[in-house]
Amino acid sequence: MDKKRVYLDNSSTTAVLPEVVKEMTPYFSDIFGNASSFHHFGREAKKALDASRIKIAELINATPDEVFFTGCGTESDNIAIFGVLNAYCKKGHIITTKIEHHAVLYSFRHLEKQGYKVTYLEVDKDGVISAEDLKKAVAEDTLFVSVMHANNEVGALQPIAEIAAALNEINSKRKEKIYFHTDSVQTAGKLKIDVKKLGVDLLSMSGHKFGGPKGVGVLYVKRGTKIESVTFGGHHENGLRPGTENVAGIVGAAKALEIANSALDEHDKHIFFLREKLKKGILETIPEVIINGSGSRAVSNILNVSFNYIEGEALLLKLDMKGIAASSGSACATGEPSHVLAAMRADPVAAQGAVRFSFSYNNTEEEVDYVLSVLPEIVQSLRNMSPVWRSKKQ
Amino acid sequence: MDKKRVYLDNSSTTAVLPEVVKEMTPYFSDIFGNASSFHHFGREAKKALDASRIKIAELINATPDEVFFTGCGTESDNIAIFGVLNAYCKKGHIITTKIEHHAVLYSFRHLEKQGYKVTYLEVDKDGVISAEDLKKAVAEDTLFVSVMHANNEVGALQPIAEIAAALNEINSKRKEKIYFHTDSVQTAGKLKIDVKKLGVDLLSMSGHKFGGPKGVGVLYVKRGTKIESVTFGGHHENGLRPGTENVAGIVGAAKALEIANSALDEHDKHIFFLREKLKKGILETIPEVIINGSGSRAVSNILNVSFNYIEGEALLLKLDMKGIAASSGSACATGEPSHVLAAMRADPVAAQGAVRFSFSYNNTEEEVDYVLSVLPEIVQSLRNMSPVWRSKKQ
Repeated sequence: MDKKRVYLDNSSTTAVLPEVVKEMTPYFSDIFGNASSFHHFGREAKKALDASRIKIAELINATPDEVFFTGCGTESDNIAIFGVLNAYCKKGHIITTKIEHHAVLYSFRHLEKQGYKVTYLEVDKDGVISAEDLKKAVAEDTLFVSVMHANNEVGALQPIAEIAAALNEINSKRKEKIYFHTDSVQTAGKLKIDVKKLGVDLLSMSGHKFGGPKGVGVLYVKRGTKIESVTFGGHHENGLRPGTENVAGIVGAAKALEIANSALDEHDKHIFFLREKLKKGILETIPEVIINGSGSRAVSNILNVSFNYIEGEALLLKLDMKGIAASSGSACATGEPSHVLAAMRADPVAAQGAVRFSFSYNNTEEEVDYVLSVLPEIVQSLRNMSPVWRSKKQ
Repeated sequence: MDKKRVYLDNSSTTAVLPEVVKEMTPYFSDIFGNASSFHHFGREAKKALDASRIKIAELINATPDEVFFTGCGTESDNIAIFGVLNAYCKKGHIITTKIEHHAVLYSFRHLEKQGYKVTYLEVDKDGVISAEDLKKAVAEDTLFVSVMHANNEVGALQPIAEIAAALNEINSKRKEKIYFHTDSVQTAGKLKIDVKKLGVDLLSMSGHKFGGPKGVGVLYVKRGTKIESVTFGGHHENGLRPGTENVAGIVGAAKALEIANSALDEHDKHIFFLREKLKKGILETIPEVIINGSGSRAVSNILNVSFNYIEGEALLLKLDMKGIAASSGSACATGEPSHVLAAMRADPVAAQGAVRFSFSYNNTEEEVDYVLSVLPEIVQSLRNMSPVWRSKKQ
């Protein structure tokens, strides 16, 4: 008999939706041409590529020439950051936050080593930066700002539109524009992404986070943005990202975003219900837990909980033995202490007991019930092994 | 009724083999985990990733820790070149050829602008560089050499093992090693790739050129090679290439290389037979044609022919109308005059009439017969529109 499996690590990656696999399949062996080729096979591939670009453009309120396909979300972030900064003929000041995904954070650290001045903005206890802080951080030589849309560990939503408005005002009084990028990897497919309303110049997405295949990133680049390619090769993606386009994967990513966007509110309601049920259940049955990040200022699909007196890794192992998949934060940084919880000034010991449950709209209430049926006992058994807990209880 | 379709543009891209699609499919919706996650779903994905890495390592006579997955062949080339050069703390002299794919050529041009001294080696009339020339080009401050294994437009095979031996000898007398990279995108799956026999430090491959999916590149990096990541993010691929691994695609690429390698000689014999048949047929039925590159010093799957007095693009259009897909060279550089034929000192007018037919082992003799049944008439009709041809015939 198959073991019961509950997947609550949807912020790491999601299953490709069956409709998406179906949509992709013809592009492997039948419509397999190189989209840069002029013959029938190439044109058919190009048609699919164009249609996917148009689809994504419509879904995010951009124009097709503003949509670029890359190999992953990380690559989208890297192209956005280095592509824009390389297009400047000088180094200067750049701004980001302390809670970015490593794709952005490590890019900024690298730039810092290269001689850029970097401001890493602080967050409040919910993991949210202040647009006011950002405004104050802008200097005469500020060139670029990157602030994630929602944090991948705690779900904290950042005030992107507010920042954009502030930067717009600043830009209106300057000769040289400060470009604004957001890493939207955790929000695409969960919230309506409207690049105009967000007011950003660049926005990154990743197909496998919203039911598409791995290996496809999307980068929105507002028309008129000065940007250079950071890798070298053919003319693909209007010269911004060389390499034969992964047509099947791109078709899949576009289809997945379309499906996700077709019922955002309904999905969000369901996910919110599941998360709140899990949160409530945990708070009711397990003492000494801390919810990291406030639900009201975060996406609905992430619940980050610190279980005091235990190691998150140990808990994850026990959950895994019960067929439940969760994570300690970012899969991209497995094993490291969380820089996000540290920035939120979480107690370091509590942070070690942090576990992220992340939902998709395909999760069910029954799955949450199952988690709640095993979690208290697991937590208790682990705490029983903790000398600190035992001494406390005596 | 479906139109007859003959695909002779396999050097641009190939159809994904049905067995490969079958092998990939479970990794979309069932074994969909993030290979960096520690839970069941992640471990299952990691298992597939590891198995693919081992498979490819065995096929190219490397160890698994020397095999890295990327998003495409172009990315593999870029990481090899910039990754090694960034690991040096200084600029210097680098060597490549005039006939590289743009992924290498444009990388070198960019480096030239950055202050590197670059030698672009000449080729002979068959498109082959001389190892002796390369040896002579090496200077005290030479850091890096990149020479493609086989050229993508004419198939010319380069003396990689000979160059490696020469560089080895030079390296044995130097303090600082000159690293040697080869772009093997056109040979992987066609020739047995043995990195030890080739003697290279770095080697690039692309899954979609040998029956795997688009969106997967492979980079071999010899143990001990000093190399830095060129993009920034998570720890994936041992820190060399951040971004969630495209497990399904990687599984597919490994399977495709395995299938291709399972019958290299047999496939090569078949492809060689088809190419020679097409070549012979063209030479017998169409006057004033030039075969670009000599078959004896080239891979078996490429036939590059100049049809004098006509434009290659016009011929391709007419062939396409008959359901035959060929190309004018690299799909990555569609529309540009060929830098490869120019380097081979082909007559510029003849070069404009160049067409590349590239075979896979799934092509048939019947397909070649079909091409030969329509090609002479097409060439004749196009020549009849050429004033030069008409004046010559009068």
